[in-house]
Amino acid sequence: MNKIKDSVQQVKAFAPATCANIAVGFDILGFAFDKLGDYVTLKKRDDQKIVIESIISEETLPFTTQQNTASLVIEKLCQELSLDIGFSIVIEKGIPLCSGMGGSAASAVAALVAFNHFLKEPLSLHELARFALMGEQQASGAAHPDNIVPCLFGGFTLTYSQNPMKVIQLPIPKLYCVLLHPHMHVSTRSARDVLKSEIALKDYVKQSAHLASFIAALYEQDDNLLSQALVDDLIEPQRAQFVPNFYKIKEAALQAGALGMSFSGSGPALFAFAKTEQAAQAIGQAMQKPLQEKQIESNYWVAPISKNAAHVVFEGE
Amino acid sequence: MNKIKDSVQQVKAFAPATCANIAVGFDILGFAFDKLGDYVTLKKRDDQKIVIESIISEETLPFTTQQNTASLVIEKLCQELSLDIGFSIVIEKGIPLCSGMGGSAASAVAALVAFNHFLKEPLSLHELARFALMGEQQASGAAHPDNIVPCLFGGFTLTYSQNPMKVIQLPIPKLYCVLLHPHMHVSTRSARDVLKSEIALKDYVKQSAHLASFIAALYEQDDNLLSQALVDDLIEPQRAQFVPNFYKIKEAALQAGALGMSFSGSGPALFAFAKTEQAAQAIGQAMQKPLQEKQIESNYWVAPISKNAAHVVFEGE
Repeated sequence: MNKIKDSVQQVKAFAPATCANIAVGFDILGFAFDKLGDYVTLKKRDDQKIVIESIISEETLPFTTQQNTASLVIEKLCQELSLDIGFSIVIEKGIPLCSGMGGSAASAVAALVAFNHFLKEPLSLHELARFALMGEQQASGAAHPDNIVPCLFGGFTLTYSQNPMKVIQLPIPKLYCVLLHPHMHVSTRSARDVLKSEIALKDYVKQSAHLASFIAALYEQDDNLLSQALVDDLIEPQRAQFVPNFYKIKEAALQAGALGMSFSGSGPALFAFAKTEQAAQAIGQAMQKPLQEKQIESNYWVAPISKNAAHVVFEGE
Repeated sequence: MNKIKDSVQQVKAFAPATCANIAVGFDILGFAFDKLGDYVTLKKRDDQKIVIESIISEETLPFTTQQNTASLVIEKLCQELSLDIGFSIVIEKGIPLCSGMGGSAASAVAALVAFNHFLKEPLSLHELARFALMGEQQASGAAHPDNIVPCLFGGFTLTYSQNPMKVIQLPIPKLYCVLLHPHMHVSTRSARDVLKSEIALKDYVKQSAHLASFIAALYEQDDNLLSQALVDDLIEPQRAQFVPNFYKIKEAALQAGALGMSFSGSGPALFAFAKTEQAAQAIGQAMQKPLQEKQIESNYWVAPISKNAAHVVFEGE
């Protein structure tokens, strides 16, 4: 227990939604979007149990510790640091489940960031990322860092090595993001299973040119180049089937002024970039129409790409 | 003939050697290395013939117009611009043939840059690149821009679209380059034929992380990151067979302080980066030893990565 601050009794942390892949950076790029996110509160207990006290969500979440990413990562962390401590956990889900906006990562990251605040010697973001990966392993069947990293670090991130975890914080473009959520479920697992395990070398060359010029565009702050680069010829065509009228939605977004549009993570959520907030609103509305034609409801959020990472919002004695 | 300056009778241009691919940017990245290069002199003729007057080279080069990249691109250009003009061409080859240092590109580019100097309204570099591609098609059986672009633009280049040609000039790292030439031939065709036409998606993800972090390293001027990123898990393993003791050479380079080492283009030439000129000299010597063990002679050049593109060196009336 001497690793834990005695004065702190409860901590609440926020973790933003995240958009992984960003068309050109399959499994390596992502950014944070703090217009929505999850809150996790940890309250010290007298016993040494990890207990989920409540989950505030419009959807049903697994209540058992081993299936919930927030409690799972806290258990792992207590084990690894040999801490005899118990917590009651309150989870407030702001991010819809299985939406492709990093919901499972956000719950795990919020829990970790809250927990870190209890420690006398807090862990580095890289160390926290390692524990959050265990939660992703649980949630999606694979330890992918693409949501965890932007959630923990904020802004635009490039994960250039997973083991050991190495992250580059890229320049944040001065753009607005539309994040649109079609009200339908696509599991990360099925979105992964659909992908071919091989790609043609010539497609690799084309896609790597998109990626390299996108990174250059971020540094050059060149919106036109960013827009030209924001093309996914590899993954997007294989996943377009999951969202009815996908190409109509994309066309509508581009017509309304989007600099690019693609899946957020493995979907069904979609992101688009815009130069102004006004344009972003118009793009969001335009993207909803082709979904309405298919009787699919949706909602969207508009915000600048956020440099805000997950953070503590409340500490109680 | 009214498109041509009357006053100019002959023009000599230099085009640098180039290193394509740079481990992480197969077919899209390259840089110029002006310690060696080709010179092409164009002399106006009274008739309308394109004639190779002489080729100064230690090796045998095709003398017929249709097989020589320098004369080929001049013919194409005259056709396209409907110019009734003839030239005698003198080619001075500084770049060894089939070495992977952009020799065929350099001859074509030097010819084009010299030719452009005759025009009252010179063509843009992008337009010249299109003609140089025709020469590459002739020389290697495929129209690859990876040597042409750094040769024409200088410095570090990213070709992010080939048709239409679009080029980004990347920041030039403050490093020295060792360019080592093992005295053996590898044809571009056979170096291409050995490549598998498909790659695994998981290898794509890893290699794309190397590429993205390399681009970031150039902008961040971060030599350590550049060194970590300079890894080719895709192409290099398939081509290592062409250079005896390849992995020993690589190990020797890294031991001697190289930030990275791989093939220049499709080889057999090899490049390495070093922080100082002294280190670069030591790296060059270290790389020669494993080749000597296999009775392969070699030579190397050391120079900073050059921002100098192909350029006119002499104009005569």
